[in-house]
Amino acid sequence: MLKGISPILSPELLATLCRMGHGEEILLADGHFPAHEFSDTVIRADGLSIPDLLDAILPLFELDAYDPAPVITMEAVEGDSLAPTVEGSYAEVIARHSELNPKISRLERYAYYERVRNAHAVVATGDVNKYANIILKKGVTPISS
Amino acid sequence: MLKGISPILSPELLATLCRMGHGEEILLADGHFPAHEFSDTVIRADGLSIPDLLDAILPLFELDAYDPAPVITMEAVEGDSLAPTVEGSYAEVIARHSELNPKISRLERYAYYERVRNAHAVVATGDVNKYANIILKKGVTPISS
Amino acid sequence: MLKGISPILSPELLATLCRMGHGEEILLADGHFPAHEFSDTVIRADGLSIPDLLDAILPLFELDAYDPAPVITMEAVEGDSLAPTVEGSYAEVIARHSELNPKISRLERYAYYERVRNAHAVVATGDVNKYANIILKKGVTPISS
Amino acid sequence: MLKGISPILSPELLATLCRMGHGEEILLADGHFPAHEFSDTVIRADGLSIPDLLDAILPLFELDAYDPAPVITMEAVEGDSLAPTVEGSYAEVIARHSELNPKISRLERYAYYERVRNAHAVVATGDVNKYANIILKKGVTPISS
Amino acid sequence: MLKGISPILSPELLATLCRMGHGEEILLADGHFPAHEFSDTVIRADGLSIPDLLDAILPLFELDAYDPAPVITMEAVEGDSLAPTVEGSYAEVIARHSELNPKISRLERYAYYERVRNAHAVVATGDVNKYANIILKKGVTPISS
Amino acid sequence: MLKGISPILSPELLATLCRMGHGEEILLADGHFPAHEFSDTVIRADGLSIPDLLDAILPLFELDAYDPAPVITMEAVEGDSLAPTVEGSYAEVIARHSELNPKISRLERYAYYERVRNAHAVVATGDVNKYANIILKKGVTPISS
Amino acid sequence: MLKGISPILSPELLATLCRMGHGEEILLADGHFPAHEFSDTVIRADGLSIPDLLDAILPLFELDAYDPAPVITMEAVEGDSLAPTVEGSYAEVIARHSELNPKISRLERYAYYERVRNAHAVVATGDVNKYANIILKKGVTPISS
Amino acid sequence: MLKGISPILSPELLATLCRMGHGEEILLADGHFPAHEFSDTVIRADGLSIPDLLDAILPLFELDAYDPAPVITMEAVEGDSLAPTVEGSYAEVIARHSELNPKISRLERYAYYERVRNAHAVVATGDVNKYANIILKKGVTPISS
Amino acid sequence: MLKGISPILSPELLATLCRMGHGEEILLADGHFPAHEFSDTVIRADGLSIPDLLDAILPLFELDAYDPAPVITMEAVEGDSLAPTVEGSYAEVIARHSELNPKISRLERYAYYERVRNAHAVVATGDVNKYANIILKKGVTPISS
Amino acid sequence: MLKGISPILSPELLATLCRMGHGEEILLADGHFPAHEFSDTVIRADGLSIPDLLDAILPLFELDAYDPAPVITMEAVEGDSLAPTVEGSYAEVIARHSELNPKISRLERYAYYERVRNAHAVVATGDVNKYANIILKKGVTPISS
Repeated sequence: MLKGISPILSPELLATLCRMGHGEEILLADGHFPAHEFSDTVIRADGLSIPDLLDAILPLFELDAYDPAPVITMEAVEGDSLAPTVEGSYAEVIARHSELNPKISRLERYAYYERVRNAHAVVATGDVNKYANIILKKGVTPISS
Repeated sequence: MLKGISPILSPELLATLCRMGHGEEILLADGHFPAHEFSDTVIRADGLSIPDLLDAILPLFELDAYDPAPVITMEAVEGDSLAPTVEGSYAEVIARHSELNPKISRLERYAYYERVRNAHAVVATGDVNKYANIILKKGVTPISS
Repeated sequence: MLKGISPILSPELLATLCRMGHGEEILLADGHFPAHEFSDTVIRADGLSIPDLLDAILPLFELDAYDPAPVITMEAVEGDSLAPTVEGSYAEVIARHSELNPKISRLERYAYYERVRNAHAVVATGDVNKYANIILKKGVTPISS
Repeated sequence: MLKGISPILSPELLATLCRMGHGEEILLADGHFPAHEFSDTVIRADGLSIPDLLDAILPLFELDAYDPAPVITMEAVEGDSLAPTVEGSYAEVIARHSELNPKISRLERYAYYERVRNAHAVVATGDVNKYANIILKKGVTPISS
Repeated sequence: MLKGISPILSPELLATLCRMGHGEEILLADGHFPAHEFSDTVIRADGLSIPDLLDAILPLFELDAYDPAPVITMEAVEGDSLAPTVEGSYAEVIARHSELNPKISRLERYAYYERVRNAHAVVATGDVNKYANIILKKGVTPISS
Repeated sequence: MLKGISPILSPELLATLCRMGHGEEILLADGHFPAHEFSDTVIRADGLSIPDLLDAILPLFELDAYDPAPVITMEAVEGDSLAPTVEGSYAEVIARHSELNPKISRLERYAYYERVRNAHAVVATGDVNKYANIILKKGVTPISS
Repeated sequence: MLKGISPILSPELLATLCRMGHGEEILLADGHFPAHEFSDTVIRADGLSIPDLLDAILPLFELDAYDPAPVITMEAVEGDSLAPTVEGSYAEVIARHSELNPKISRLERYAYYERVRNAHAVVATGDVNKYANIILKKGVTPISS
Repeated sequence: MLKGISPILSPELLATLCRMGHGEEILLADGHFPAHEFSDTVIRADGLSIPDLLDAILPLFELDAYDPAPVITMEAVEGDSLAPTVEGSYAEVIARHSELNPKISRLERYAYYERVRNAHAVVATGDVNKYANIILKKGVTPISS
Repeated sequence: MLKGISPILSPELLATLCRMGHGEEILLADGHFPAHEFSDTVIRADGLSIPDLLDAILPLFELDAYDPAPVITMEAVEGDSLAPTVEGSYAEVIARHSELNPKISRLERYAYYERVRNAHAVVATGDVNKYANIILKKGVTPISS
Repeated sequence: MLKGISPILSPELLATLCRMGHGEEILLADGHFPAHEFSDTVIRADGLSIPDLLDAILPLFELDAYDPAPVITMEAVEGDSLAPTVEGSYAEVIARHSELNPKISRLERYAYYERVRNAHAVVATGDVNKYANIILKKGVTPISS
């Protein structure tokens, strides 16, 4: 554990977030997501919810201001509907930590999968909400002086 | 995730618990415990509390009935006192899952460290309570038919 | 071994089943199947029969309710016939453990091979029946509370 | 699988038995035995019984004729008793395959553990009988011509 | 070494033969064959002749009865001729061990190379005869009872 | 890079600091220190000075309040003298970041080496001042809420 | 550290520069560059500026005299402008160390990325200037006698 | 294979012999010797006899002229006798290749084992003669000009 | 070192030469060649000249008699000229060791690079002559008796 | 290769020299020295002489001024004599590169071996002179500005 950093971030996740550069993406995957099918870099975060992880990550992780859609969830498949509160809970955490406060974008399922294949890493969370996956795109980190 | 198994157990922790034999011990270490100093087999469980992990582990993990002290916490160092509710919360979970329901034993600090050195593995939890470390000794697993 | 989990599942197989996400597939391959030709992730289960493994796996493993064909065997090659009792023995175990109780589908041989190439893992069982291979597709694991 | 060799032997176990030299020992450990505590070379054989493994191993594995006690089980701890049929079932398999047909020896528990520490490998079987562990000491393999 | 198994088979070769499934192929390459150019799985057998290896392998290894050509040598390149006795010596060993006793097929050089690229493994023997390479295709292993 | 964390900390150093538990120590070694002689866990920080690293580490790293000497430099060897400004520059950074603001202790050379052998890690800095090595002992990290 | 070589070069970076041949390229990437997206060989140099690294590297590293453009920065994306002083500071260091003193070339962003993919290695510096990335192409090293 | 070097030497064995320095020893172990019990560096030479290997090794390998006993076999255990022809066959090969032509020494069994523990490597041959093990001590290689 | 083998060949190079089969190629690269760009199997031979290495390799390495061009250097790029003595010095060594004594062929630069990509290995020599690279194609090794 | 650095130093040796700290030692071992017996860190330098390596190393490597004996050869064993010119040739190179110009010390054989066991690395040179081994102890590297 480190001072001022949420203790729910594992050392490996912390190093991964630190290693990411401008424009790279990370998926916080829900507990049902087939993480190993889409990534060779899977970081386990069993038992943790995505809002709690967002709350731990966003104070450290600048969202990309150059991309109008740096936060992306998956569109509901036809005939299915999004869990009403999930996206709201994400928006609330994002608003709290990001000056940019970008709108959450949605991407069609297969386009989403393709995007995950190119992500820097996938965090296998324990979140069990429906359509809970969320991609974060890293921006230009402001320099701490 | 698997049916009937708590989703907070990582695949690696599940395999480790499964691999342990009769008489082997595992430490659920609090977030301040120097896990790598005492074990080469550290399983991360950042962000998870020890009562929640006990609640997930004990339905799968038989405590050792041959040893009068299969559940062990650390004695308070002189001049220090145990957190009043920690041990109680452990006892409550143990009582709920274990027919044996063993009393929690306490071990002097340096004897405790020595015991951890011989443990099968250390789980680095995110629990931040004082004197929260707990050793579990595995018994003879009853056979599921 | 763990309480309530069949002791025939190796720690490695247990972790693999746990790591699989919604929509991922695993092949229980018979003893003659060229497992290493079609997968880099082969888990040995020499000496074990596929019905016994199904009986151990299905209490933990939810079949995919979104796919009408989450359980798949290989079609007999022309001029060859399926072992009459094999599929029946599988259906019996599936019926016993799955509320969904899906019908077993059959897939043409080369399509089957292609499917195995994309599977999460192959379990190299010791089953020596003809046309004994079976693919299981993982569904959305119900959450244990 | 190979002709004339029991299909319950995994490739890894077969290679291990082959690699052993005169005087080296292997433990067939029951499912409760803390295999990893006593050996760095653990071969999984989950779900298999020790008599079945003996039946598969002994046609290939010459017991040591130079040692009066090449087959060793663990003595019952004081106050405990051996399962009456276990040793008998072992003796039956041994008699069937070994011309030497050595008597099964028993060794006190801690001496047994020490012996296992020096063994070439430990096979983690799925046998759940009490006092089921058995050490085999390899002899001079007669040459096949 | 193991009883009833030729001592010239290394533990690694034995495990490899065991791991192969129905339809997989292995090349016994002569000492001049560029083994590493065509395979990532090369097993050394320096100093051993191919007839001796065939004599050791075939008692354990069922040739594929479904394929009319489960044993394949390389056709002589134009202007070159096969060593008269090589194929004969192979046929003799095959006849001695295989009820099927398949005719040895020949394959044009580049088609041969392509086939080797897909083989399960290449055994780098010490045989120095011309056109001595031989591919064996594994069949359905009869079960030992 | 991460927001609010000094960019001079490498991902690996950040993860290492995070992994350390209460009572574990890390050495910031000067550029002449034989780091590999005393530790198997060496993290390179070539080109960086120790005061700059202290300035980056201390906002994240709680010094041990239970030990009167959680910050330790090496005593000058007889006949040699400490660089006058080194310790002062360290004290200045420590005072700026640590409420505890412990006095810097000095340890005799060989005792120092022994201490380094037991440290969690050694950071090989590029600092070229004399007697610049400094050990930091981690305390109980205050929890960020 | 070595005499006559800048101490800011890590042993790994020194070996990498040494291993590079004529015509191979290395990127000094700024702290925001997604180094791992474009290279499997990333050398960390956190906390170091690119001018300082150039100053350390160029005395050892001959620029390619056969290529009119052996030093390459990234062109500003439309609507963006280069930091006025960055390129100047690079030119100053290059002029100081290189007799060849090549003009710094600029390459369009996506062509730049493609070039980095083929580079020998990427150095992840801590430089936080805009458009600070610089590729160096190695020439024919003059032989020291 | 290489010109002038016996083709029965594997590339790995050749490199090992080359890497050995003056005074280092290598054991040619018979097929029954527990090679892995006494060495972490075991080179397989299944199917090869020790005289053939000596015949391949000695043209390349200078025996130690400084030690009166650079070639060592194991003394017969009491009540046992050496195979009459084994040592003779070794002496014949040694005489053919070594100007030094040292007498073969014998060492008591447990002293022999201790010596093997310190050997550079063990070659696991396929020789099945009794008391066939032989240690070779490397001398000062004469320089080829 | 080994008797009758040049001491300048490293154990690794010796094993590599031995492992190569008929038709495989090895590049002796000059000190400026970008070895790692064209091969994953680079063997260092810093400080050694190519003529000295040829002199050490050719007594062991049969050139391919089936290919009219088993020894290949790189053609001078337009506007450049070959070092007059380099090829002559190679021819002299080849003539001394090879009965075949093939003429040295030259290949256009990019065709040369492509050829190197398919080579078995690249030896990174310390030769600093211009156009010094030379490819050797292995033939059928004559058997030593 | 790098400008101003002798091309006979391999990248690995260069990195090793750089990684060494004040007081650490490296052995330049002659071609007969049993390098692997005394060190786990052996760097090959086959074909290179020790004077040439000293000539390449000493411009980069400061000898220890705090130790009166930072350069150490092995004393002749009784009845043997040192090669008259070896030590002289070393002294000449040292004098040329070292302002300190320390006298070469000699150490008794077994004390020498013990010293090598504690060295940072052993360079396996191709030098074939008698008593050619030389240990270098690293000093405080003067900082290049």
